[in-house]
Amino acid sequence: MEIVVSKAELMKGVNAVSKAIPTRTTAPILECIKIDASTNEIHLTANDTQLGIETIVDGTINERGIIAIPAKNFEPIVHKLPDGEVTITTNETYKTIIKCGKVKFDIEGQSGEDFAPLPLVPKQSPITMSQFTLREVIRQTIFSISDNEERKMMTGEQFKIENNHLKVVSLDGHRISIRNVELKDQNRDEDIVVSGRTLNEVSKIIGGGTEDMVNIYITEVPKERKNEVTQHICFEFGKTRVVSSLLPGEYFSIDHMIPKEYQTKIKLNRKELLECVDRSLLLVKEGDKKPIIMNITDGNVEMMIKSVAGAMDENIDCEKDGVDIKIAFNPKFFIDALRAIDDEDVELYFVNSKSPCSIKDEKDSYLYMILPVNF
Amino acid sequence: MEIVVSKAELMKGVNAVSKAIPTRTTAPILECIKIDASTNEIHLTANDTQLGIETIVDGTINERGIIAIPAKNFEPIVHKLPDGEVTITTNETYKTIIKCGKVKFDIEGQSGEDFAPLPLVPKQSPITMSQFTLREVIRQTIFSISDNEERKMMTGEQFKIENNHLKVVSLDGHRISIRNVELKDQNRDEDIVVSGRTLNEVSKIIGGGTEDMVNIYITEVPKERKNEVTQHICFEFGKTRVVSSLLPGEYFSIDHMIPKEYQTKIKLNRKELLECVDRSLLLVKEGDKKPIIMNITDGNVEMMIKSVAGAMDENIDCEKDGVDIKIAFNPKFFIDALRAIDDEDVELYFVNSKSPCSIKDEKDSYLYMILPVNF
Repeated sequence: MEIVVSKAELMKGVNAVSKAIPTRTTAPILECIKIDASTNEIHLTANDTQLGIETIVDGTINERGIIAIPAKNFEPIVHKLPDGEVTITTNETYKTIIKCGKVKFDIEGQSGEDFAPLPLVPKQSPITMSQFTLREVIRQTIFSISDNEERKMMTGEQFKIENNHLKVVSLDGHRISIRNVELKDQNRDEDIVVSGRTLNEVSKIIGGGTEDMVNIYITEVPKERKNEVTQHICFEFGKTRVVSSLLPGEYFSIDHMIPKEYQTKIKLNRKELLECVDRSLLLVKEGDKKPIIMNITDGNVEMMIKSVAGAMDENIDCEKDGVDIKIAFNPKFFIDALRAIDDEDVELYFVNSKSPCSIKDEKDSYLYMILPVNF
Repeated sequence: MEIVVSKAELMKGVNAVSKAIPTRTTAPILECIKIDASTNEIHLTANDTQLGIETIVDGTINERGIIAIPAKNFEPIVHKLPDGEVTITTNETYKTIIKCGKVKFDIEGQSGEDFAPLPLVPKQSPITMSQFTLREVIRQTIFSISDNEERKMMTGEQFKIENNHLKVVSLDGHRISIRNVELKDQNRDEDIVVSGRTLNEVSKIIGGGTEDMVNIYITEVPKERKNEVTQHICFEFGKTRVVSSLLPGEYFSIDHMIPKEYQTKIKLNRKELLECVDRSLLLVKEGDKKPIIMNITDGNVEMMIKSVAGAMDENIDCEKDGVDIKIAFNPKFFIDALRAIDDEDVELYFVNSKSPCSIKDEKDSYLYMILPVNF
């Protein structure tokens, strides 16, 4: 194989696909980036079997071929090459020579033929949205997935599309995050659970433009066979595809978890509240579960926290509707939700000190529900 | 005690003195910042017994007093306070209340009287230089001190002042760094060894302006008593003083270590050489001591490195004077020296493949000597 690609183009491609390189694996081939120049295009691929990323880089193919190169060598080398045209040459023993100007690297490759192909996801009836929309809904919900692999379904996010309406839900047993977005011209409805890791990586490599679109393809499986067959999702944007298996099974039914009525509603400045809760963590050691207590009275929220290191007490103006209430929360959950909101003011709804608090807007574009803790 | 200080002023002061807070200690008082408002000025001090930093903050003293507050609580609280006037109040049981706007923190302090005072360094006949000069000479030499406490003298730097000329030397057994600077109007000569840690912290907190000066005071001890009495140095700049004990004893005599003659001299672009050596590290694992081999012939330096991960080979144009030579070095040492130099081109002097290489300029403003390794 011999290809010539500009350093900038190669770096962009390597950066994108390397997100699918597993941090730990026993199969050396999974630690490789495949360069496939066996057709008229140069494809870079990484695939850890759960998540695969493929991108096309512009370049010249002098000799067709295919190679797999360990990412831990290839990626830093590409980063530190001087600017210019990079020539990658391989021979039949997978020796790989990377040349750029007067710089030459020799590294060992592996057979590209051993590299597992990405699962096939037919390009039929895509769900389409802007890269901005996708990146935003991920950012605004990803923090409340669980990292506990024993509660697999909680490690993913529900993407439910119905009548041009996208609802994204994540929950970890202590809180629920919901984002609602109106889409346009969708010709299919879907209700799937996408792995949180996949969404994280997608949000890192999509550009995020409001005019740049992402097409989402999902393998179609008849309902009665959904338990037997692994369904896949493919995010396609620009020259890049991210393919991942979906989490099998049905997501949690959350409607009954969210209080419909409230006894207390307050409206207050989001930034002020966020900075206050953020400060409250100063006295709390990592891993030490100290609640922040909110004492809500007319026009005022008193926020209090106590630990061995000391105590904090702060007052924030609010508009109150309903009864006084004293309630306590894990401060971190409040910070996550408040950071995901862009509005200047937020509205908090409470039932009583044992029931969850909801942060939601009138347009119903978001809802963050947080369970209280004892104090 | 009750004092009022603006958040910005307080933060500046806390940031400066907290550099002297030890990361580990068995004496809780050493982990504190002392606020001394027992006179007309507010002094903040931290002192780990080797290194002490004191600064004056502008503010109002409503009630005189003195307190010691654990830095690990005080510093982050000050950082996250809203902008505005901060009131710090303490009572006879050392309870400390920090108030700013509607925010209130209660933390436990300690008796400020228990806090060890900084060693006294009389303000007599200072050595004076710009903050820029001091920060630069530290940056340009500090990397070649040793962190081995068993070779104490190597953990410091020699500062030798003679006839308005400052020479700064550091060495770690594998390399020597020397910087020469002309000073003005000095009325004393000195030959001292300053702790590397102190220099590091000083360089972090001095402003670095060319017009801003730093006064350096040294306790005077008769020569015959130098072995009995600990000598101290005080760096004074703006409203801040850094006081540290000097390393006792005489620094290494280095003149005989530096080759006077050379067999090969090359001149080449510094940035090109630096980027090449930097790239050569890509194939070397942390802790793996692979040398970079330089093969110098007419007009060309070939740089080569080999490891289990692969090989790099790069050619750099040079102007050569003298014989061909092949020699190998620890690449990291080259990177450190080349980063400390600002010149566009550098000149390297070699004797033979067993003798050190010197990187020096014609004005004699710097000399970096690096021992070769076997290959």
